[in-house]
Amino acid sequence: MAAFERGEQRALARAITRCESGLGEPLIRAVFERAGRALTIGLTGPPGVGKSTLTASLVVRMRRLKKTVGVISVDPSSPFSHGALLGDRIRLTEHFVDPGVFIRSMASRGHLGGVAGATADAATLMDAFGFDVVLIETVGVGQSEIEIAEIADTILVALQPGSGDSVQMLKAGILEIADVFVVNKRDHPMAAQLQREIRSMMEMIDYGGWVPQLIATQAVDGQGVDELWNAILEHDAYLRSSGEIAHKRRAAYEYRVRALALGALERRIAGAVAALPAGRDPYAAAHDVLAQFGALP
Amino acid sequence: MAAFERGEQRALARAITRCESGLGEPLIRAVFERAGRALTIGLTGPPGVGKSTLTASLVVRMRRLKKTVGVISVDPSSPFSHGALLGDRIRLTEHFVDPGVFIRSMASRGHLGGVAGATADAATLMDAFGFDVVLIETVGVGQSEIEIAEIADTILVALQPGSGDSVQMLKAGILEIADVFVVNKRDHPMAAQLQREIRSMMEMIDYGGWVPQLIATQAVDGQGVDELWNAILEHDAYLRSSGEIAHKRRAAYEYRVRALALGALERRIAGAVAALPAGRDPYAAAHDVLAQFGALP
Repeated sequence: MAAFERGEQRALARAITRCESGLGEPLIRAVFERAGRALTIGLTGPPGVGKSTLTASLVVRMRRLKKTVGVISVDPSSPFSHGALLGDRIRLTEHFVDPGVFIRSMASRGHLGGVAGATADAATLMDAFGFDVVLIETVGVGQSEIEIAEIADTILVALQPGSGDSVQMLKAGILEIADVFVVNKRDHPMAAQLQREIRSMMEMIDYGGWVPQLIATQAVDGQGVDELWNAILEHDAYLRSSGEIAHKRRAAYEYRVRALALGALERRIAGAVAALPAGRDPYAAAHDVLAQFGALP
Repeated sequence: MAAFERGEQRALARAITRCESGLGEPLIRAVFERAGRALTIGLTGPPGVGKSTLTASLVVRMRRLKKTVGVISVDPSSPFSHGALLGDRIRLTEHFVDPGVFIRSMASRGHLGGVAGATADAATLMDAFGFDVVLIETVGVGQSEIEIAEIADTILVALQPGSGDSVQMLKAGILEIADVFVVNKRDHPMAAQLQREIRSMMEMIDYGGWVPQLIATQAVDGQGVDELWNAILEHDAYLRSSGEIAHKRRAAYEYRVRALALGALERRIAGAVAALPAGRDPYAAAHDVLAQFGALP
């Protein structure tokens, strides 16, 4: 870890690879107490909404402010995952030679501990490495978003005008996890309508403390990105002034411990499950599997 | 269960509600040995692709063949989940008064055992109730699709022309789970292009046995639905003639038992996780939690 501590990005990259291979434990144990200083941002939304472009624009913004940034892309369709350097994506690649930026794509597959496993490890490593901001980009509706909400401080939900998908996603429960809504492609003729839809849906929710901000961007031109960055900072200030940051991080910590423990338990029951005789109903079979663990609390 | 055994749909509905409340165990234990006869179909795809319309068209087709059908909608944005009876959705509601059709929407939330928990219970109940076909409709990219692939015999992946989302979903790993691709809205000018994209991506995969079929539909008019139904029957015939059905159902069974056992373990570790002191790295904390279970295998 000497190279990691000297701030060599290659050592960080190797450490993340070890986490992806399930060998991250000694690394995380070694660096954990140095983590906790970074602002961790989750960015999620449907495929095609422009998450990579938003990420690139935010990185540009942060670099102007001399903030260092680690980016984790858990989007299997992300250009970062495929090495594609096309069109507007080229802008982020400028930062591949900037030592203040580190970009890493990660696989999202696997049952337990997906985002909470190797991705959370990578975020801890980037945090401990010293990045001011860790930005985690995830795709999808469903589980992956819920998981990102469990581990990030601030959740950005990006939606796209003129796409029925965005409204469907709102209905599908994404409203509840957003700290900031981003209507990207704000030049689109349907952008105003999407903003109205988001606002009217927000009215149906009794937000206890923070009320999500809604920012319209045209990430490909960098428009609205300053406002987005300000919204992120405001949410961060809210978390700190309200004391909510402590609750949020404790919940993230418990989520992560639970995922690790369950991952270990899943591996331990695998043999018993594979050896089950046919024909037993699944509940009885699950009891049989658990009985092999002896007296559980 | 007398009313269930007499074939009263209200008894089936009540039984599914009990499963949703986590009280399904005695019901499943009672009926499990009667299940296993239904053809179980999973239908997945992005929001807005027309899954509900496809479901409605398939139900119409099956009813003409005198097949009875249970439908489970695990799509929180589905019209079935909201009681909305709008536009083309009206067609399925005709079947609300047909005793050969039973439609049920279910919540998809919850960490473990989402689709594999109450949804799998509901599918078992419908199967044991005597429906010839159980059709499970799920939304999303990511976890929910993987889960549906774990429990259904035949997976339909519906994609939409002219939506970058569809191509992104293909890249995101949906190729591997599809038994039948459905290009819905085939009258769309981009439909031929999407079909070419699917075919060219399929060429990159070495399918061992079954090669996915690609069916173009215009579900709102019922076009292509006969071909889709035939593709489903061909896949079913392939599963049976190759013997793959036994492997597939065994894997589904193990997946389900594992989810039930892990759900129970998650509840059992909850207290230990909540009681963790601050500051320990998550791996050490997970070891502490597991240590409270005594000597595990």
